[in-house]
Amino acid sequence: MPHDLSRLSLNTATTKLLTLPDAVDAAARAGYGAVGLWRDRVQETGAEKAAKVVADAGLRVSSLCRGGFLTASDEAGIASALDDNKAAIVEAATVGTSELVFVVGGLPAATVPGGPARTPETSAERDAERDVVATRQRVADRIGDLAPFAAEHGVRIVLEPLHPIFAADRAVISTLGQGLDLAAPHPAHVVGVVVDTYHVWWDPDLQAQVARAGAEGRIASYQVCDWILPLAADPLLSRGYMGDGYVDFRTITRWVTAAGYTGDVEVEIFNQEIWDTDGDSVVATVADRYAELVLPHL
Amino acid sequence: MPHDLSRLSLNTATTKLLTLPDAVDAAARAGYGAVGLWRDRVQETGAEKAAKVVADAGLRVSSLCRGGFLTASDEAGIASALDDNKAAIVEAATVGTSELVFVVGGLPAATVPGGPARTPETSAERDAERDVVATRQRVADRIGDLAPFAAEHGVRIVLEPLHPIFAADRAVISTLGQGLDLAAPHPAHVVGVVVDTYHVWWDPDLQAQVARAGAEGRIASYQVCDWILPLAADPLLSRGYMGDGYVDFRTITRWVTAAGYTGDVEVEIFNQEIWDTDGDSVVATVADRYAELVLPHL
Repeated sequence: MPHDLSRLSLNTATTKLLTLPDAVDAAARAGYGAVGLWRDRVQETGAEKAAKVVADAGLRVSSLCRGGFLTASDEAGIASALDDNKAAIVEAATVGTSELVFVVGGLPAATVPGGPARTPETSAERDAERDVVATRQRVADRIGDLAPFAAEHGVRIVLEPLHPIFAADRAVISTLGQGLDLAAPHPAHVVGVVVDTYHVWWDPDLQAQVARAGAEGRIASYQVCDWILPLAADPLLSRGYMGDGYVDFRTITRWVTAAGYTGDVEVEIFNQEIWDTDGDSVVATVADRYAELVLPHL
Repeated sequence: MPHDLSRLSLNTATTKLLTLPDAVDAAARAGYGAVGLWRDRVQETGAEKAAKVVADAGLRVSSLCRGGFLTASDEAGIASALDDNKAAIVEAATVGTSELVFVVGGLPAATVPGGPARTPETSAERDAERDVVATRQRVADRIGDLAPFAAEHGVRIVLEPLHPIFAADRAVISTLGQGLDLAAPHPAHVVGVVVDTYHVWWDPDLQAQVARAGAEGRIASYQVCDWILPLAADPLLSRGYMGDGYVDFRTITRWVTAAGYTGDVEVEIFNQEIWDTDGDSVVATVADRYAELVLPHL
């Protein structure tokens, strides 16, 4: 009997080289229930057409990646971030998902996209660009700015805590508990969180915070992939298929299930070797690993 | 006027290629107040002679690195870890420091020292080797085993939370709060913690946990070095001089000072380029950066 893949979602970053229609086709043929989309491929296809492609294939859109990069401190940077995130909110609604994943951005001194660290003019500027406390406050402020717009469009701002390896350059939200604290001022249907095993597996407070996220109704997505060693030269691409690394999927999946999560399980793997592999093979391997390591604990 | 370097300690891993006497000599000539020693160089010199070398130079030993690697689950591995850590405790007392830094070890599937991940025989073994909750419990158990011996020798077990980048292979203690929770069953003079900026700068709960550590009298060492990007090919060596990366030394140093810490400030940098630099130059650069970025906030 084939495994039940109805809750399995292919985040299309896992098959980065496929167009949106090709990724949707591969997921549908393999029996997946959903896809998680990225904005670049959505824009390439067009959001309305992307929605139709997914619906015609009989799939759901489990999330759109990504909004965020909210940490600018200058007026132009703030305005640009708000504009871009409003566009992302509209795109999420158009492609038919309520869940827009946010990678909130890192320290101004290091945040990507962008090149090397800038050279600040003064010692005070230098300090400000490394002030993680103030940077986090700006994230909270921007979430507050965007929440009404997201609510109007029926889209949830989904905060993604990233592994602390990315705290300087990508996300000053490093733990699930911190994400929930930032979400707390807002209704659960307006601001939620992702639980991504790659990012949070190491957290000594994980069990309690997953339970809290569930109790608050804020688990917008459960994402699974593995922490592999040695790290890739670009740590961003250092993710592996479930089972190839050190994450305890049995335990974490049970915690997520115990927290009441019944939504899609997205597999999002950034890995050059996997990107260089034929899409159908990747989709098949992901399904096998999901069936072996995750599904029994859902 | 020269800067007051009386609280500055050269962790000798920063000048890895120097023998213990040469590192002590360089630190003393530069006006440092202390050195942090590593066991390999202590053993090479002999612990009693090492104590004399440091004392003759008019320096203190701020800490000995390192004990730990407590996560084995088999009887032989446990016995070996206890034996080795008892030897380290005796060495610490002999070289004249009360502070023995512990890197507690990672998951059995990945812990270094050791080679690649082993291939487990069964699915249950595979799960057990990735069970971070059970691994942490073994750390707690081993600390309990060692605490009486440490106390008898006037040596404190100093738990070092390591950046989560090392959670799989080096230390399942990833946050200061978690270190303090593990220390809690024991008196403050028997089990303490290190605050190392490299490992904990990203922690959203850092201010509160530094205050807690101070209030409990458990800050055994304040270590400073910087988080630099891009990461080195070996992430273990991806540390930089203060000021070369993204750590906010001003803020963290003020938190440590506000917590009542008045001890030595150790600089421990693993970095191949720095290791390849002349020892006196390294010691001078460390002193300059300390004077500029840390000392004003102590």
